[in-house]
Amino acid sequence: MRLATRANGTPDGELIVVSADAARCLSAADIAPNLLAAIERWEAVEPMLLARADLVAAGQGEPLDPALLRAPLPRSWQWLDGSAFATHGELMQVAFGLDPIDSERPLMYQGLSDRFLGPHDDVPVPDAALGIDFEGEFGVIVDAVPMGTSAAEAARHIRLLVQINDWSLRAIAPIEMKTGFGWVQAKPACAVAPFACTPDELGGEWRDGRVCCDLAIDWNGARFGRPNGAAMAFSFPELVAHAARTRDLVAGTIIGSGTVSNPDYATVGSACISERRAIEIIAEGNPRTPFMSFGDRVRMEAVTQQGATPFGVIEQTVVAA
Amino acid sequence: MRLATRANGTPDGELIVVSADAARCLSAADIAPNLLAAIERWEAVEPMLLARADLVAAGQGEPLDPALLRAPLPRSWQWLDGSAFATHGELMQVAFGLDPIDSERPLMYQGLSDRFLGPHDDVPVPDAALGIDFEGEFGVIVDAVPMGTSAAEAARHIRLLVQINDWSLRAIAPIEMKTGFGWVQAKPACAVAPFACTPDELGGEWRDGRVCCDLAIDWNGARFGRPNGAAMAFSFPELVAHAARTRDLVAGTIIGSGTVSNPDYATVGSACISERRAIEIIAEGNPRTPFMSFGDRVRMEAVTQQGATPFGVIEQTVVAA
Repeated sequence: MRLATRANGTPDGELIVVSADAARCLSAADIAPNLLAAIERWEAVEPMLLARADLVAAGQGEPLDPALLRAPLPRSWQWLDGSAFATHGELMQVAFGLDPIDSERPLMYQGLSDRFLGPHDDVPVPDAALGIDFEGEFGVIVDAVPMGTSAAEAARHIRLLVQINDWSLRAIAPIEMKTGFGWVQAKPACAVAPFACTPDELGGEWRDGRVCCDLAIDWNGARFGRPNGAAMAFSFPELVAHAARTRDLVAGTIIGSGTVSNPDYATVGSACISERRAIEIIAEGNPRTPFMSFGDRVRMEAVTQQGATPFGVIEQTVVAA
Repeated sequence: MRLATRANGTPDGELIVVSADAARCLSAADIAPNLLAAIERWEAVEPMLLARADLVAAGQGEPLDPALLRAPLPRSWQWLDGSAFATHGELMQVAFGLDPIDSERPLMYQGLSDRFLGPHDDVPVPDAALGIDFEGEFGVIVDAVPMGTSAAEAARHIRLLVQINDWSLRAIAPIEMKTGFGWVQAKPACAVAPFACTPDELGGEWRDGRVCCDLAIDWNGARFGRPNGAAMAFSFPELVAHAARTRDLVAGTIIGSGTVSNPDYATVGSACISERRAIEIIAEGNPRTPFMSFGDRVRMEAVTQQGATPFGVIEQTVVAA
């Protein structure tokens, strides 16, 4: 099942069920007014949403207007982003001479969740010199997860999968990281691809608690990278359990994978500019690739082995705030 | 004007206006259903709330039941906590051999905001060995603050002042701090004192963008500290401007001061156990004071020079989760 959020003038938008070809949809506002409300009582609403999805699959529905699609959750109470791809961490560490980070625990920070940009929203940044960078990643949306939930138990709380562009300002990131307090200024609002998928929608590519799709990324029309999501050192259930160790996770919490990154980066490329610059620093002593400028565009689309694009497309332009 | 939130079975509670002696109150649910809704359209609702406060001051109202008081915002979209008291930072740095942190920029992290504990709520922690600690601090609630707002402009977005107990798990904090990603497991839900005050309520003790009250803290009935909030190296407007550099701040964002700490800590004590332990380490080589145990209580109450207690009392017990 694929769910999306259609603009309707409310902060949380209208919940809709989308056809496999993304051509048609049916409103689910009578089942739950919006996706946040649905995830808060998922066990009750899921059967009704599945029945609605059956109607869409049978040919019912109205044409889907892509221009009205917002982030599946235009806002949520909590966004916790991991950094679960070991290759990315190792490259950054070597290139920037960082201390090795204990690899026994997932890395995770809490970011801005009061606003998720829609898949085609412009990205306002106050200064082009801030090191504007995209980060392609995957994420999960959980229902309420009690404190102390194990990774094995966490898997069943993962209700939806999403594809995220975690915007980053690299000129600020190391300054904030050095304080130990994590990122505030370095992490403006993320964008999210239009379709939130139940795990079964990915078939065999939701595997070992990982989204095992390629993430195809184009910068100003040129292919930048196509790494695969399978390479996470920690699975999403492990990330959820990590987040829930000392807190209950509120329904609608989004947990991110961190930048998708693969050991064969020389072949598949990267999911953020900073990683490409790290590779250049290691190989050549200096970075060659600049960060983004105002007017630059980035496009991200996850692709299955069968060529399906379950999450739809993120395509955004950076603009002066 | 003092506002509070009364339990009414909804996630956000009922907005009430409270008398100066905290004995009486009037519902404001007809003006705004809850405080989050009020802060979202503050300029429109403030005059109506002030008129309601006049009625309370004139003797109207029902008896206030302290047992029904929740955190003023039982949940909010964003909680950004600073660490603005230089003495605290210096003591921690010396005691634990941390690298000096650039003092030109405020320190700030984003914390859990989907749940703020009420002033008398128990504090569930999964393991007594996690270094359970309180942190007494002040905070501000802002209305919508546009990206790029200056400190001078930020002052007028500060609508309410609050008193906070920022619970911390000290056995995890340095591990998470070392990653540079900030705290997730080390920072469970904060508690907030019952009354949110408009700045005028503090008279001269809202000064230079700081809450210049003493914060009296008792641990298991014994005085632990009584530092004053005036000593912030950065004012609240400066913290708000820092937070808003690369993001719009959503209405209802809470910005914290960090642990209140004074240069004359030998006389006034501290607002968290970790700081007292740092003082012991510096003076004696080792900490003597243990962290909290299950069953321990902490009480926090801000006091003005005239002996008023504008925010009311936080009094909580630590329990096994």
